[in-house]
This record gives sequence, C-alpha cells and structure tokens, in this order.
Amino acid sequence: MLRSHTCGELNESNIGEKVSLCGWVQNHRDLGAMCFIDLRDRHGITQLSFNELSASSLLEVSKNVGREYVLRATGKVIERSSKNEQISTGGIEIQVEDLEVLNQSSTPPFTIEDETDGGDELRMKYRYLDLRRPKLQKNMFLRHRTSQAIRNFLSKENFLEIETPYLIKSTPEGARDFVVPSRMNTDQFYALPQSPQTFKQLLMVSGFDKYFQIVRCFRDEDLRADRQPEFTQIDCEMSFVQQKDICQTFELLAKAVFKETINIDLPAFETMTYEEAINLYGNDKPDTRFEMQIKHLDKFAKGHGFQVFDGAEKVLGIVAKGASNYTRKKLDALSNFVKRPQIGAKGLVYCKYNEDGSFKSSIDKFFDAQVWQNLAENCDAHAGDLILILSGTENQVLKQMSELRLEMGRQLNLIDNKIFKPLWVTDFPLLEWDEENQRFHAMHHPFTSPKTEDFDKLSSQPKQVKANAYDMVINGVEVGGGSIRIHDRATQEKMLSLLGFSDKEAKEQFGFLMDAFEYGAPPHGGIALGFDRLCSLLAGEDNIRDVIAFPKNNQGRDLMIDAPSEIDPYQKRELGLIN
Amino acid sequence: MLRSHTCGELNESNIGEKVSLCGWVQNHRDLGAMCFIDLRDRHGITQLSFNELSASSLLEVSKNVGREYVLRATGKVIERSSKNEQISTGGIEIQVEDLEVLNQSSTPPFTIEDETDGGDELRMKYRYLDLRRPKLQKNMFLRHRTSQAIRNFLSKENFLEIETPYLIKSTPEGARDFVVPSRMNTDQFYALPQSPQTFKQLLMVSGFDKYFQIVRCFRDEDLRADRQPEFTQIDCEMSFVQQKDICQTFELLAKAVFKETINIDLPAFETMTYEEAINLYGNDKPDTRFEMQIKHLDKFAKGHGFQVFDGAEKVLGIVAKGASNYTRKKLDALSNFVKRPQIGAKGLVYCKYNEDGSFKSSIDKFFDAQVWQNLAENCDAHAGDLILILSGTENQVLKQMSELRLEMGRQLNLIDNKIFKPLWVTDFPLLEWDEENQRFHAMHHPFTSPKTEDFDKLSSQPKQVKANAYDMVINGVEVGGGSIRIHDRATQEKMLSLLGFSDKEAKEQFGFLMDAFEYGAPPHGGIALGFDRLCSLLAGEDNIRDVIAFPKNNQGRDLMIDAPSEIDPYQKRELGLIN
Repeated sequence: MLRSHTCGELNESNIGEKVSLCGWVQNHRDLGAMCFIDLRDRHGITQLSFNELSASSLLEVSKNVGREYVLRATGKVIERSSKNEQISTGGIEIQVEDLEVLNQSSTPPFTIEDETDGGDELRMKYRYLDLRRPKLQKNMFLRHRTSQAIRNFLSKENFLEIETPYLIKSTPEGARDFVVPSRMNTDQFYALPQSPQTFKQLLMVSGFDKYFQIVRCFRDEDLRADRQPEFTQIDCEMSFVQQKDICQTFELLAKAVFKETINIDLPAFETMTYEEAINLYGNDKPDTRFEMQIKHLDKFAKGHGFQVFDGAEKVLGIVAKGASNYTRKKLDALSNFVKRPQIGAKGLVYCKYNEDGSFKSSIDKFFDAQVWQNLAENCDAHAGDLILILSGTENQVLKQMSELRLEMGRQLNLIDNKIFKPLWVTDFPLLEWDEENQRFHAMHHPFTSPKTEDFDKLSSQPKQVKANAYDMVINGVEVGGGSIRIHDRATQEKMLSLLGFSDKEAKEQFGFLMDAFEYGAPPHGGIALGFDRLCSLLAGEDNIRDVIAFPKNNQGRDLMIDAPSEIDPYQKRELGLIN
Repeated sequence: MLRSHTCGELNESNIGEKVSLCGWVQNHRDLGAMCFIDLRDRHGITQLSFNELSASSLLEVSKNVGREYVLRATGKVIERSSKNEQISTGGIEIQVEDLEVLNQSSTPPFTIEDETDGGDELRMKYRYLDLRRPKLQKNMFLRHRTSQAIRNFLSKENFLEIETPYLIKSTPEGARDFVVPSRMNTDQFYALPQSPQTFKQLLMVSGFDKYFQIVRCFRDEDLRADRQPEFTQIDCEMSFVQQKDICQTFELLAKAVFKETINIDLPAFETMTYEEAINLYGNDKPDTRFEMQIKHLDKFAKGHGFQVFDGAEKVLGIVAKGASNYTRKKLDALSNFVKRPQIGAKGLVYCKYNEDGSFKSSIDKFFDAQVWQNLAENCDAHAGDLILILSGTENQVLKQMSELRLEMGRQLNLIDNKIFKPLWVTDFPLLEWDEENQRFHAMHHPFTSPKTEDFDKLSSQPKQVKANAYDMVINGVEVGGGSIRIHDRATQEKMLSLLGFSDKEAKEQFGFLMDAFEYGAPPHGGIALGFDRLCSLLAGEDNIRDVIAFPKNNQGRDLMIDAPSEIDPYQKRELGLIN
C-alpha cells in the first residue's frame, strides 16, 4: 500500500509513529517559513506540516501544490500546537519528511463543498467531482450500509438472494419496456425487466420458500423528480403466507434498517385501509406526521344557497389549528396555490373562526354565523382556527385537498423532519376503471389475488372487488407495495380476461406462469420496496438522484458519458435494424 | 403463516407438540388401513401418517393426493416406529388431524430428482420444476451464501458497494455490446455494460477509496458452455495500491469464501508469470493440481533426420509417469484426440520407456535408444514412463500440448476433485498483435497500466511491454483478473493511440475518463471475479448454467418464457426503429 493509514485514523495515541498518508489537498496555508496542508480522503482530514527547519526542500514543493492535488506524504506524527477539537485527527499533525505529488489537478469547474456553486447540469457532467462533496460521500456510504443491513436481516430470516435475468420478454401490461434487439434471433427483442415479478413467483413454484433480491429495474417513462429510467428494488417473495405475515416480516425489516443505519427506533406501523386513507388524507400514501384530517362537509355545507357547494359532488374541508390570524395576503396565496394547473381547483373558500368566537369567511354572503357554528362543531374547529374548503368532483377534490393539507402542514411547521411515521395501507381495489380506454387496469398488477370473500363479485361487480394488496408508507412516501398472488390457473385466466387479454394473448405472454401453476404452486405473496426512495428517506433527501451514484437527467441522459448516443451503422446492420 | 414449522425442523424433542406443516408430496405409500406421505420443502422432509383410527375421513383424502401436490397438514408430532437415521426428522412423524390440499399438480414432464430423465431443452422449458431438484436447490443456496460471504468480507475491509448504471454508452472495444434504443432520444442507443470498468475508475477519482459491486454484465457473443449473454461479476477497485496489495486482499477474500461456503482451507496462492505458465503448461490458466509440466525438446529432438521435428518451430513433450504399459489402442485414441479439429495437431509421437529400460517409439526408424536415452534424461523420464511429443508452430503446439496434458491428467486420475490449487498469473503482455487486422489489441483492456520499467518501450517495442495485470486461477479455471490502471491523461492517450484510436475517437468514447484524470486522479487498480464461475467451482459443477437460476441456451434464448420475441409494431415505431 502507498499509505500506512487513512486520513481519518491518526490521533494522539499515534504520536511519534512514522506514517504514510495519501489523499487530496483540501486546503493549503502558506505562512512563509511554514506551510500547512489539509490532506483529505473519504475517512477524514489530517494536517500535514512543512517548515524550513525540518525539510526546506519539501517546503518549496508544498507551496506549489494546488487544491485537489493528490499527495503521498511520509513523516512523523507530532502533537499539534493549536488543536482542532472538531475532528478526531485534530490533536495531531504529520511533520512531513517525504512528499510525492501522485497527481496534479486542474481547477475544478465548481467548488467541491456541500453548498456548491455548480448548477445541476454542470455537476452531472462532472459527476465524479460532484461525488467528492461530503453530502454525496455520506449518501453513498449510507446506501451501502442500508443494503448490507437489508441483506443481513433477510439472510438471517432464511431468505435466499437469487438473481433473475435482465434479458427477458416484453409485455404490454404496465409501463413501457426498454427493449434490446437480438443479433442471433433476427427481428426479435429482449426486454429489460420492470420488475422480476413472474420470476420470483416461479421461484416459489420451485420451492425456494423465501426469496429476495436487490435488483435493478427499468421503466421507459417520461421522467419526474423521483423517477429514473433505471432504479433499484428490494424484491421479496414468500410461500405459505398470508398478508399479515408479510407485513409483519417487512415491518421488522424496516425497523432493523432504520435502527442500524440512522439509529432511529421506528414506531409500530399503523394500518389504514385504502378507503380510510383516501377519505381522511385524500391520497393512498398519507403523511401522518401531522393530523389535519380531511372533513367531509356535504351535510353542513350544502343547502345554504351557495351554488358552488350545492352543485358539487363533494365538499371537503380541513381545519388549520390556530391559523385564524392568516392575513389576506396569505389567504390569496393559498387560493393561488390550489388554482395552479398542477392542482387545478377552481377556488378556495376560507372561514376564520376568530379568537372572539366570530366568523369571517370568503362567502359571508351565503353563510351566516349559525351555519359556520354548526359546521365548525362538526369538524372539530375551535376559536382561533382557520377552516379551508374545496369542492368539486370526488376524485379531483380529494387530490386537491391532499395537496392543500400538505401545504398547510408545511406552512404551519407541523411536519417534523426528525420523526418517522410508518403505516400499512391495505384493502386496495383489485381493478381501476380507465374511462378513456373503457377498460380495467390492475391497480397493483395482474398477478394480485382478489380477497377470498370478494371472489363471487369478480364477474358481477368487478369494481367492488378488493385485493390482498398493501403498501408500506412512511412520511407520505410510498416505500413499497405488495400483494398475495394468484396461484391457480383458473383465477389467473379470469383476471387476465377481466383486463382485456384475449385467450391467445394471455397464453402467449403469461402461458409459462399459468403452466407453472399446474405443477403444485404454493400459496405465496410478496413485496417490492423502492431502494432509492428508502435511501433518500434515510438520508433526508427529497430527490432520489442524491442517493444514486450516476443518475440520469430528466431526458434520460447521462450527461457525463453522453449516453444514449449514436451507434455504428455496422452495429445496426448486424442487429437487423437497417439493411 | 400457514405453517408452524418447516419440513426440516422437527425431531424427537418436539414429540407431543401440535404443529402445522406445508410442502410438496415427495412420496406416497398407501398401505390400506394406513397411508404415509413424505412432505418436502426446501428445508427437509417430514413423514405424515394417516390411519383409520385417528381420522378415517382424512385417510381417504390422503390416498388421493399425487406427487407434487401442495399440502397443509396439522397434527401431533409422534415417535416413529421405524426410524430413518439418514435424516434429522427421521425419528418422528405427524399424526395428521387436519389436511388441506393447497394445490394439485399435474404429472411433471420429467422426474424431479438429481438423476433426472429430462433432456436439457425440456428442463430449461420447465426450469421452475428443474429448480426443484436437490442439486439445483443446493446450488442456489450455495450461491446465496457465497454472495453473502463476499459482501461481508469486503464490507469489513471498508469496501463500499456502489451501484453503477446499466444504461450506458456503446464502445467498439472488446466484445459486442447489447444496445437499447432510446425512445426519448431518436436514433440514439444505450448499451448494456460489459463491465462497469470506467465507472469504477471514476469512483476512485471521486475518492471512494475501495469499491465493490456484485453486478450483472452483458456480452453479445456466440455462446459456449461456460458463457452466458448475461453473467455476474464481483467487481472491485482500490486506490493508492500496488499489484501486491490487490493480490493480497483478494487472496484473503478467496480464502474466506472457500472456508465459509464449503469449509475448505485454500492453500497459499502460488505466483507464476505469464511466460512461465505458457512455457510449463501451454496456457495462462494452468491446472496445477498435477505436475506433468511441458518439456521443451528442440535440443534433443531435432537433428536426427526426422523431418517433422526438424522442420517444426517447436517440439514439446510431456512425461506420463508409469504409463509405459499404454496399449496400442489407447495410444491410437490419444493420437485421434490430438487430431480432433478442436485441437488440430497433425499427429502424436510417443515413446514407451519400458520397465526393462528399453524404448519403443512410434518413430523408431529415426530415433535409436541413445537419442531416447538422452531425451529421457533431460526431461526427467524414467523406466515405466510414457513420453508424448507434439511439434509445430510455437503458439499452436503449446495449446495442443496443454490439451493433451489435461487429457492425460484425466486418464491417469491425477486430478483430485477434492483439492483446490489457487495461483496468481502475473506479468501479462500489455498488447497482443492481431495478425488478421494488423493491429494491437489490449490483452486485458485499454485502461491497464504498463509496468513502469517498460514505459520507454511503449513506442519502440510495444510487443515487449509487460502490464501490471494479474489473473486469479484455481484448478485451471480463470476465476478473474485485474490490473493497475492508467491514471493520467498522457498515458491513456498513448495507449488508445497504440490501439488504433484516432484522437477524435478516443475523445468521443473515453473523453470523460481522460478529463477526470485531470482533476486529481489517484493511483488505483482492481479486479473482477466471475461470480458464476466461482460458484460453479465451489459447487463442483462443470457448467455455469447449473449455478444460474434462469440461464439461456446456446442460442441466447430463454426457453421458459420464450425470449427474445417479436414486439408490437407500435412499440417499434415509438422507438423509431420503423416508420
């Protein structure tokens, strides 16, 4: 090794030892007759000292190194005259006796610090420099420890990590596949997996009992802040289980991971049905770190001559505790917030329940104090609170109210970033109706089992059928989801037919799975957790890019290596893509 | 859980307990008034017993289950009258009180046993049944434990597992890339990585110090028995190291893995130069479990009037100890062996050094006893031995001799499958000359550093330049290889130019890497081990397919899911592949 120690390792106990360190120049202080260099590596920073007396020739060299130069320094560990209590190596320095410049460095295009001056694009182009920033170094380390914690937990629980193929078969269900032309099989394509779903089910048919894999998955979607064309999934499956067994196992996993990586004791997971989540929070991944549940106000808000409410399918409200002092300006801003195209409300009705017991609302013309009094009593509002009301079609107003609730949580500082509130959302509908294409989609995926008690409704009232499906939600983030699977041919055929597959299509695309169900398929179920999202949650990052070493931008491009790119016509010809 | 225990868990200490087991019917013995079922899961086999007295209705059910049916049985653990000492559960059985048929099974298309009657194609089509065979169950379990052992070792050594992208950029160097058309960037393609080589080097530039990843890699090659289009690599890189540091670290890794997975104490690794390996064994991955080194016989075999030798570039021999009694038939078979097109020798010369001290050779016309005596003395042959000689051009005859040596090792039972002989092969040439295309190829890859002392020869005598490259070889299997890398722009440019890259091509394809070298790149090096091959070595399998859950056949097809396959014209249009 070119070094005897890392830059984070030496302290007073090493005084007198002769050591060699390697690292990057973080800082350089030239004091004339002396020079100090802070030498950095991933493990820490150690001060190198040079002076005229000990080594005058080195002093000259040391004065000429620049930031991010790579050095190898050999010398004696000595006590520092002015100690730095902030870092573990702050009590010592190296009196350098030999210095080798291992590599030089041009001036980096942006400052390599947490608060950098580099824009997104620039930092993605020079990602290898961006990754030197302490924040990203910490995130990669956290990601490593997270995967280790997951693997150790699951291995101890007798799960086997089994690798499934990346070159599989394209299926039109779900998001778009990335495809891979086959040179050896002209005009045929592999697809990259959106998830190893069918393979993990086949592993249950094979009798592997408990499977997991931390695995890359691919979706050719138009990208958003929290999506990447390739992402990593913690993929799991178990045999001979019911929903509660899976939830129990993965609640323990989550607890172990949070404890081991960021020393957080997760509280017991709440359970909430899909219906409750939608009704109380307006979405299926509620942030339960704060209350402010949605109130259903039809009964109290309709019939008072206000056409907007009277004509609406649904009137919903939230009560912002202690916010009756909201200014006109703030209320206007809130109104603009809900009218933004991403949210799409027509307008916002507010009512201040003043400290003195009076009411002041934006619809005083229609609602007198008595109406408000009754409404307030029924939605647990008190003097000093602010009531915010939206109306419209059920689906839309629930979504809008969900956004407004989160915004109010932020504005009133109700969201504590230090706490974690995990829950299971259960009892999802099996199917969702696609109005545009007049067909059903599987809410989870086509392999999810309907609840036994709803089996009879599959033909008669498919919209009413609930699924044995569950999502793990933490702080409003859908960390993952899973389901108990169908494990017999008849039900799988029925399900695919409900989803609009012809018999031929069903057989062509999933025949192998339905065949497998005929050879002793055990009851089974599983879950898939988003590893990138879990890591960003642990790291306290909003964007998953900050926990991915080499992410792509919103156009799916890797700006550093400049991919995708054109390929050689010869390559295309060989693949049969051109003649 | 549908079960209280697995089928491998219960023994005499559980007698009297009420338990529930789930599993597959391995065996079924109907004795009229009684019936026994062996219930199997991945953990073991437990006997279920049914009789008229305890539960006559169940007896009827139990008589009608078939092989591979999935059952859930509840009952009491009782002592078995005739115990089976072979298995840990052999002392008990379950007196079944409740039986549920969880799923039926059709008759499998082949017997699910280690010695199966299913052909390769059939078993690949029904891979989920093939995977039920004990051998494959064991292999998957071993593979899981191997990856855990590797990850635990490297994590303890402060390596970070960092995931690199799968959608990268196509480069013409090396094998063929699989490419992925980009929908969002018309007429552009991603490539699937043949290895994360450049990314791991960039991670060193980022200061991650020690990186690893167990990662899928892809090569679009015509397939052989030990190749798959997708394969798994243990990919590693370290900063501030020299060759010996890497060899030391990964020797310790190999030892830890062999110990933890198959309880083998690997001996200390030998080191052998590439030149020695070629000269003594005829190839760069010698199986050193047996001696029989190649003898260079030019001096003793030429000049005796035998034109075949006299006109050959090289005459090589091996001495098969104690094989002078080889029959004519066996010798003819050997001669045919070396003349097979895969080996391509023109003929084989043998000489029996009989027990009585006389010589009998296939070229007695040209060589008398004295010539043989001299030759025998100089190649350490003794009475009772068989000398086998091949001649031809150096490259060819070395390869042929290597094959003949291995064949003789097998015929004479010199290869002990219980022992493991690891070694490092070092000092590879940096470049190899491609006669056909009149250009150099990188022997390892274009990022490998030449040895410092050979730097001057890069321009003048490039063929003479040795690389800081090393292979890990165990029992004749190349487990992996690595090198110290180039870490400065000038050397990398020089290397790419030697390999025939124009400046423009070099910049387009590897500009990002050479740019990175300008911002403080540390000296670094690494290694990549073939995970599939390592697992097959540990499992004692010849073919890596037997340690891969869902392998592809020799045409790169997955016979089970039938991939690759045609895709929808709509999909192709969206990707810009057709108009």
